[in-house]
Amino acid sequence: MKRDKISRNVILRLPRYLRYLEDLRKNDVDRISSGELGQLMGITASQIRQDLSCFGEFGQQGYGYNIEHLKEELGEILGITRPQNAIIIGAGNLGRALIGNFPFERNGFRLTGAFDVSKVVVGAVISGLEVYHMDDLERYLPKTAPDIAILTMPGGVANATADRLINVGISGIWNFTNVDLKITDPNITIESVHFSDSLLTLGYYLSANTETQEK
Amino acid sequence: MKRDKISRNVILRLPRYLRYLEDLRKNDVDRISSGELGQLMGITASQIRQDLSCFGEFGQQGYGYNIEHLKEELGEILGITRPQNAIIIGAGNLGRALIGNFPFERNGFRLTGAFDVSKVVVGAVISGLEVYHMDDLERYLPKTAPDIAILTMPGGVANATADRLINVGISGIWNFTNVDLKITDPNITIESVHFSDSLLTLGYYLSANTETQEK
Repeated sequence: MKRDKISRNVILRLPRYLRYLEDLRKNDVDRISSGELGQLMGITASQIRQDLSCFGEFGQQGYGYNIEHLKEELGEILGITRPQNAIIIGAGNLGRALIGNFPFERNGFRLTGAFDVSKVVVGAVISGLEVYHMDDLERYLPKTAPDIAILTMPGGVANATADRLINVGISGIWNFTNVDLKITDPNITIESVHFSDSLLTLGYYLSANTETQEK
Repeated sequence: MKRDKISRNVILRLPRYLRYLEDLRKNDVDRISSGELGQLMGITASQIRQDLSCFGEFGQQGYGYNIEHLKEELGEILGITRPQNAIIIGAGNLGRALIGNFPFERNGFRLTGAFDVSKVVVGAVISGLEVYHMDDLERYLPKTAPDIAILTMPGGVANATADRLINVGISGIWNFTNVDLKITDPNITIESVHFSDSLLTLGYYLSANTETQEK
């Protein structure tokens, strides 16, 4: 199947499959049936078989999935095996949290530089990563060679910053600002982590649960 | 429609509607048709009408939506008008980023305490919020009175911590650890922000785009 035809819901489940397979490998499990994996993950076996069949034939009748093999194949599909360069725009608390704690390499990316506009952080080195001034973005392109940019600066400048980044050739954005980027170029890939959308969703279900219990 | 029967995909769009309505109000727009709103948001007018119809009749033929009114109704549905107490477990970089920068009040929550196990941060006050030792969770219950807990500590202790929090009576968890919580109590609401799932998804689409361009 052509990759760009596969439904987004299937894609969104792949990282979760990978996480469970990694845990199983850590616990020295070699193989698993779709039924057992489904039970662990709280989804049906047929859902798993259907999702994975978009990418090839991974299981064997009567044997199940070879976990190491499936893990490698999923890693390949998710691009982990071809690490790309990422720069991070915004070295505030969230930027620092990601720089210091997030396992970029394990997820197929390599941090090559951080940028900020505040004199307080420009020039600093955070967990081995240098913070440059945003005005020097172009100057550091040969050194940072970014494939993607991570936006952790205030939302008000998100769209202007994104445009500038696309002009210098990045092809993907990992967006942490609470703004939907208005980018129409289909060659630019955007994934957003909207904290407030997630918390509001929690609020919705809390209210819904209270309603149900009151009935 | 009973709230717990509405599809999750609809719920996940509500915060985004609210975000766009807030922006429109900031720009002094009073009313909008489903067609115009759809164009702004990149979805169809009928999708918007269908989503909102799960919760009542908000638009008027020939007039569209009164933005202020719809914003208030959505805020009500998402529980913003009934603020709940939240404690945050883990006052590392990510915890501090949330404490210092995230607009909890605007999203229907109020931070009442932070907990950690590290001597370095216990006793500190971060943006006005006191950090207590996790051993003192029970002691501070009368003061913090938490409805939900936010997990920003290492994933290895996520499930044990969640069990303990449920034992003291919290009804919701906003989970930032990269672990799926194994909680089976249907009265506990969980929303997770899985950073690595999001970045892996970005990696997938970057690889898919490259493939397409190479063809």
